[in-house]
Parts: sequence; structure tokens; C-alpha cells
Amino acid sequence: MKLVRYGEPGAERPGLIDARGNLRDLTDHVTDIAGGALARLGDLKRLSPDSLPLVPDTPRLGPCVGNVGKFICIGLNYADHAAESGMSPPPEPVIFAKFTSAICGPDDPIILPRGSEKTDWEVELAVVIGKPAKYVSEERAMEHVAGVCLANDVSERSFQTERQGQWSKGKSSDNFGPLGPWLVTLDEIADLNALPMWLDVNGERMQDGSTADMIYKVPFLVSYLSQFFTLRPGDVISTGTPAGVGMGMTPPRFLRAGDVVELGIEGLGRQKQLVVEDA
Amino acid sequence: MKLVRYGEPGAERPGLIDARGNLRDLTDHVTDIAGGALARLGDLKRLSPDSLPLVPDTPRLGPCVGNVGKFICIGLNYADHAAESGMSPPPEPVIFAKFTSAICGPDDPIILPRGSEKTDWEVELAVVIGKPAKYVSEERAMEHVAGVCLANDVSERSFQTERQGQWSKGKSSDNFGPLGPWLVTLDEIADLNALPMWLDVNGERMQDGSTADMIYKVPFLVSYLSQFFTLRPGDVISTGTPAGVGMGMTPPRFLRAGDVVELGIEGLGRQKQLVVEDA
Repeated sequence: MKLVRYGEPGAERPGLIDARGNLRDLTDHVTDIAGGALARLGDLKRLSPDSLPLVPDTPRLGPCVGNVGKFICIGLNYADHAAESGMSPPPEPVIFAKFTSAICGPDDPIILPRGSEKTDWEVELAVVIGKPAKYVSEERAMEHVAGVCLANDVSERSFQTERQGQWSKGKSSDNFGPLGPWLVTLDEIADLNALPMWLDVNGERMQDGSTADMIYKVPFLVSYLSQFFTLRPGDVISTGTPAGVGMGMTPPRFLRAGDVVELGIEGLGRQKQLVVEDA
Repeated sequence: MKLVRYGEPGAERPGLIDARGNLRDLTDHVTDIAGGALARLGDLKRLSPDSLPLVPDTPRLGPCVGNVGKFICIGLNYADHAAESGMSPPPEPVIFAKFTSAICGPDDPIILPRGSEKTDWEVELAVVIGKPAKYVSEERAMEHVAGVCLANDVSERSFQTERQGQWSKGKSSDNFGPLGPWLVTLDEIADLNALPMWLDVNGERMQDGSTADMIYKVPFLVSYLSQFFTLRPGDVISTGTPAGVGMGMTPPRFLRAGDVVELGIEGLGRQKQLVVEDA
């Protein structure tokens, strides 16, 4: 299934994308794509999509999961990106937090915070937790996953690395966390470790990678994180980005108002963001 | 006012502590001490506490604020603690994230995560946001604050600093974020910059400080953070700890199962935590 949340920010309704690409409403079957419902997505699979109301027009899509408790990001999880960042692949996963107020819809604008000089992009595969996970093994980790989605881990590099410690400061500005368009259940993915991923700025290809190059794979990451704290339904784990971010270029290249960012992962849809100044 | 949330975890009800120290129920007046209600605490001040139902017995207290979106911590914000950590006071605030699943009640046990060797304590003053704040000035920052509370920023030092990057890994284990007992409104505090604070382990005084020694004060911190992202009602800012943590001792001293931690800040009440192994 491809699940979505559509409508105005803060008032999104649940829906799904049927086999012909139509948006259908799920309001009669689930309150939200969030929380406890994420452990019961199997119930939705029994519905006949054709029986669900078609949603007219083309509404805004919100983040494909609601009420996210933890937005956990994995740093330096692609060897080529670690190299372009001037760092070695870490001996165990680097994790950092994106404050959840950064979360937005897949096509909402990227807002440059005041004073931003170095806002950058990062196409990533994100994992959405479906069932609580604490001290789970790698073998059983995927039982706790509701699905996966596309994410852009938007990052202000000067806030992240030149304004005193801890990366969260540069990872959490408003709209720095587009999630979606779809929460895709695992049965739709042939091989999570072989998904091409890409990101363009103004039509120019910047990132051209594959989840095959992830250092720490999804089952390991879910197990690893669950050793430190309980993962809860609706938690999101963004699994790192391949090479091709602006910071790694010579000279570095960052986003300016008017730029257009497009990104995608095979089977997970695409995002398109206009870069704007903050009001 | 001293506002509380009481009852079993996940099912806390709102209440207040009256002038004689009695717990009274607020269920008829507010759904929760959380979200939008935090901007309307003035409405509760008009109630006569004697008119509110007395709560019998002594229920568990939960975290004094519900549905926390961001748990933002300020690092190295007391010069004596920076020195004992072997670091210089930072030229601007260090911020890090505690994942919100760490939040618990003030007297809930401190749970040692599996593999913990270096679980440590940190008494802190925490600020609870009442109204959204974005690019606010220092002068107007306090208009966005609902109140303050006591916090213990429980920290696993090996997870924080020896297990690869970013402190959140060692700051976010389950029950590493006791908040309360009370959310105290600012009218009850004569001087936020002159509050004695202390922490004992097994009756031995470990931390004995004062908010007077904070490097970056609360109005500055609220203004500063609001330059990076929108602060929302229910966000918590824990403002750092004075000297006296276990990591800073010679030799270092860390928590073991059976230890009892007690801490307090003048006017904000006290917490008492039994240290236990994880199941």
C-alpha cells in the first residue's frame, strides 16, 4: 500500500493511492496514519481500493506519517558521503536528532531561516516504526517497521557545524523535514537494499546513489537504536544520504531563494520543493 | 500556580497544588496541562482552589507537562560544570536534543539501560513554552513562557561520548527525563536568576549550585532558540547543570541499582528517584 495524509497543515486526512494512481479517502477506516494505527496497517490491506471515495482535485500532501515522536537521523551512513564530508565511516552508527517541528509535506517549500548562508539537501530513505521496539534483535527488527518513505534531510551547514555543538541546531529549522509523498508498506518493496535514489537542483543531478551503498542497513539500525531507547509507533529513522550534497562540492554550493529541489527513491515517489526566504 | 499531572503513565489528569499543599483536580477546567492550554493558564488563576475537588490518597505524579514536542537541552551553561567536563564555556549556546520518549514523572525510577556503566545525574531548571515563538527578541521572550519546572537530565556518559557522535544517544534512554513535580507559573518566582539548586545521591550532596551561575539566561535562550526554529506550546528547554556530576569527580562516580537520587530547586519542588536495572 501507498498511504498518504492530505489536506491543510495540521488538518490532514488519511488516504491511499490506488493501483491507477488515484487518491482515495480512508477517513471511514482509520483516524490518521499515525500512532497505534501503524501497527494495524494490515487491516487496511483487506479493503478494496475501488470501494473507497475518490478525492477530487489535487490536494496538498502532508507528511505521510502524523504525530512523530522521534525523528532520528543516521549520520555518515554512506561511505562516499562520509568521504566528501572529510570524515571516516563510523565504527558504529552516528545518530542525531531532528526536532519534529521541522516535519512538513513532500512538496512544501524549503524555508531558508534568517541568516542562512549554507542550506543544503540530503535525499534519504526513512523508516517508520509500527510497533514498539526495545532490545530487539536484527533478525526480528523488521516486524517493528510499518513502512518506508522518502525524506529530504534539509540542513543548514553553518548552524550545524560552525555555531557550537551538536548538529540538531542546523537540522531542525521549520520545513527542514519533508516526509513522503507516501508511506509505502514493505510488501511493495522487492529489495530495500537496492533502491536507486537521486536529487536534482534546478534540473541538475546532484545526488545519484542507491540504498545498496548504506553502511548500516535498516534491520541493524532498528535493532541498534532499540538498545538505547524504546522505539514507538510513528518514530521515524532517516537512514543517511549518499554523496552529492552541496557542502561536498568544490566550491561548495548551497540553496538560494527560487531554487527548485526535486528528489526521489524508486518505488517511494518523488518530492519537489521551491526554496523561499523566511517571511 | 503549581500545576501537576497525576495518575498512571499515559493517563495523567490535570491538577493543581493549593496553598496548603493539597492536590486538587482540574479535569472540569482543562483537558491536560499541554498544548494550547499552556497559553491560557491565566484562565485557571481565576478559579478558587477551594472550589476544586480534593484528590484523595497520594497518586503518582506524571511529567508536569504533556505532549512535549521538543525537549531541547542547553550544554555547558554553567562555567563550573564546563570546567569539570574539561571544556570551555561556549561562545554561544550549545544545544542538544533529548528524545521525548525519555520523559517521565518526577519520582519514577531511573532505569539503567542494558550495558550502562556510566549513568549520571544533572539537576536543571527547565522552561516550558506557552505560546509559539519565532524570531522573538530577548525583551519579549518571557511572554512565550508558560512556566518552569525541575528536571533531571539523566545521562549515560559512555553512550554520550564514547559510542560515536552526537550526545542524544546518551541522553534519551527511557526515563532519562523526569519533569516536575510542578509546572510553576512565573508569578510565583521572585527571581529566576537566584534559585538555589541541589542534588543528593544516597543522602550525600553532589550538586549545590544556583541559577545565578547560568551563563546564558532564560530570556536569551528563548530568543536564541527561536532564531533556528519555531518554539511551540509544550516545548521544554532544560537550561544546563552546575558542577557536581559524577563524570567530573576523581575518580568518576556513576549510578548503580539501589542508589537513590534526590534533587530540588527552590520554589520548584523536589524529585526522588530509585535507580533500577532494566528488566
